[in-house]
Amino acid sequence: MITRAELAAWDAQDSLASFRDRFHLPDGVIYLDGNSLGPLPKAAVDRLQTVVNTEWGEDLIRSWNKNDWIGQPQRLGDKIGRLIGAAPGQVVAADSTSINLYKLLAAALPMRRDRKVIVSQRDNFPTDLYMVQGLMVQLGQGHTLRYADPNDIAASLDSDVAVLMLTHVNYRDAQMYDMAAVTKAAHDCGALVIWDLAHSAGAVPVSLDAAGADFAVGCGYKFLNGGPGAPAFLYVAERHHAEVRPVLAGWMGHAAPFDFSSDYAPAPGIKRMLCGTPPVLSMSALEVAVDLLLEADIAATRTKSQRLTQLFFDLVDQECSTFGFVSTGPSDLDRRGSQVSLTHPEGYPIMQALIDRNVIGDFRAPDILRFGLTPLYLRYVDLWDAIAVLKEVMATGAWDAPAYKVRAAVT
Amino acid sequence: MITRAELAAWDAQDSLASFRDRFHLPDGVIYLDGNSLGPLPKAAVDRLQTVVNTEWGEDLIRSWNKNDWIGQPQRLGDKIGRLIGAAPGQVVAADSTSINLYKLLAAALPMRRDRKVIVSQRDNFPTDLYMVQGLMVQLGQGHTLRYADPNDIAASLDSDVAVLMLTHVNYRDAQMYDMAAVTKAAHDCGALVIWDLAHSAGAVPVSLDAAGADFAVGCGYKFLNGGPGAPAFLYVAERHHAEVRPVLAGWMGHAAPFDFSSDYAPAPGIKRMLCGTPPVLSMSALEVAVDLLLEADIAATRTKSQRLTQLFFDLVDQECSTFGFVSTGPSDLDRRGSQVSLTHPEGYPIMQALIDRNVIGDFRAPDILRFGLTPLYLRYVDLWDAIAVLKEVMATGAWDAPAYKVRAAVT
Repeated sequence: MITRAELAAWDAQDSLASFRDRFHLPDGVIYLDGNSLGPLPKAAVDRLQTVVNTEWGEDLIRSWNKNDWIGQPQRLGDKIGRLIGAAPGQVVAADSTSINLYKLLAAALPMRRDRKVIVSQRDNFPTDLYMVQGLMVQLGQGHTLRYADPNDIAASLDSDVAVLMLTHVNYRDAQMYDMAAVTKAAHDCGALVIWDLAHSAGAVPVSLDAAGADFAVGCGYKFLNGGPGAPAFLYVAERHHAEVRPVLAGWMGHAAPFDFSSDYAPAPGIKRMLCGTPPVLSMSALEVAVDLLLEADIAATRTKSQRLTQLFFDLVDQECSTFGFVSTGPSDLDRRGSQVSLTHPEGYPIMQALIDRNVIGDFRAPDILRFGLTPLYLRYVDLWDAIAVLKEVMATGAWDAPAYKVRAAVT
Repeated sequence: MITRAELAAWDAQDSLASFRDRFHLPDGVIYLDGNSLGPLPKAAVDRLQTVVNTEWGEDLIRSWNKNDWIGQPQRLGDKIGRLIGAAPGQVVAADSTSINLYKLLAAALPMRRDRKVIVSQRDNFPTDLYMVQGLMVQLGQGHTLRYADPNDIAASLDSDVAVLMLTHVNYRDAQMYDMAAVTKAAHDCGALVIWDLAHSAGAVPVSLDAAGADFAVGCGYKFLNGGPGAPAFLYVAERHHAEVRPVLAGWMGHAAPFDFSSDYAPAPGIKRMLCGTPPVLSMSALEVAVDLLLEADIAATRTKSQRLTQLFFDLVDQECSTFGFVSTGPSDLDRRGSQVSLTHPEGYPIMQALIDRNVIGDFRAPDILRFGLTPLYLRYVDLWDAIAVLKEVMATGAWDAPAYKVRAAVT
């Protein structure tokens, strides 16, 4: 039997415990949705005040040079690179995950002009698939989107495959690919690989360079804690820089944007993947959030994440075994990202009842209750308390209320 | 002879004078670069604190519903629509100007599949041309970019033209097109028109619906005062909504994004032009800035803008006629936007000397000194004082210092 007292003892020994105070967490809330929107780093409050009042308010246009706004997409990109195993000069912060995926897809397909298949998985995050679909319709060159079995990607790879596009950690069941092995399998058949790190960056160790990755994108507002709609990032391996021709050929990626030439010429290196003017306010919040993550030991973070994962499932078994929940995703913790999901036919109202009681996860259609596990600000006792609320919601039937069945615009 | 006392009297009579106090303007600075980065509306400081501390910090993921983050791109789009003569349901705030241009170009070309020419002007803002160039290379369908004479657009229009893409107010010389007449000329030859309102929205009266416009984009951080890198906007006339197939087919433009279907289906109406998750912090600053602009009478704003324009040129004539400056752009004030430019072979160091003395305009290669005229926070005496500084810089030769000749990353 696990007890709350035992978990409090774990917390007392936690080498990461001091990070919790670096975040603003609402009183009484157990926040298990940092995989969807990370909480507010306290440092972001001060940073935004400086950016707004001083850099925008006082320095105005001079901030592009004086406060190096112009260098931020690359400076921040290099910092994110340290979280995902990318040497400097290969990552920029920019735009949204969707748009960055489009940039990479549109750049990659001409590098494999004689191949017409893009491989992904049907249960990839939908916007990834939509971006492929939009591009295929646009190009009209006979490309097809092939869905692979996530447990046997290699079976879908052949000499027709131009690009393999996968999300490293699945958004529903947390299944995590072996990036190096899958990349090698794709390269062996001549395909390029685009990794979506939306649920990986800041959550699990990633080694893009070591895995031989070609391209990657990722999200700023989930495990990176960059704030609502924070800019995303993209990675292009240095060996591809010269060959990558940006399709979204905006002035911020021009070799000499302030020459105001009427002809496009891509900047050397990763800078060419920039397009328009970056949203400085949102980018600045992301930068301090990434700075905070860089202070944490990634190995300790991973260890705690796996311990939280095992604990969550153990507590569900111990406290909630009679309520019909089914745990999803791999049982091997080394094949999982930093989130857990339970399926239940009444998943939607159950989640609303939890949120109403300040245990915040989210629901993913059709029947998934999803909980993000974020080692820097979650305590082991938080999982005890969350599962206690879940138990009470189920035991009392509190979830079965009409108000909890009204679907919100965003689930 | 114009005197400073006379201009002070004009200011005392100015019906817009009270708006100046709604902006944070640094002590001693005369800010003539609101056409590049608008100053900080005081309301944005409070709004951002609420968004950061309460909506992000306290409400967290619940804000998508509770604080209607999800509706913001359309809600803000409708507000911007009121500034540019667009009825509700035709404008969204999203992404950058460059990316929005790409969305519209990529949507418009398939609507004129048998035509292979895109017409613009060589002196359009470069990123507009780059986006066309990037798309043409990507498509490989034999499109060409034809440069029209800005004084005779019609001469470049024929039955090969798919799209006419123009910036309504030119970024260098402030020349403003007759939107209705040019749109009609394009429609008469079967072409679609994309208007870039980067230097129009918030600066001059615009009537997209009345002009019969097809598409438009614009910038959030110039005359809209939305903050550095604020999101941009785009307009699609309602009659085109059903036919427009988004190429950047992201989940925020999906008919049912939270069904998480693996197949793309565009949302009805303008919402389909959204792509990824919007940068809420930057978007929120833009929204209060637009709210502020909506309080001002646009006719009074235009009248004052034209009076500032005439005054600027008159003062240069009166005070600086011997220094070799040449005024650019149309002499007819009704054909001008809300900025003025002077050319001078030593434009770069002269502008640096001005900025060093707290008169802030900007330089545009190869030889343009550019000054934005923004009626809501500029006083007539500010122009007197700015020209007095220019006169002193020229008369003393202060501009001719080595420090002023070092080119910055951003000019």
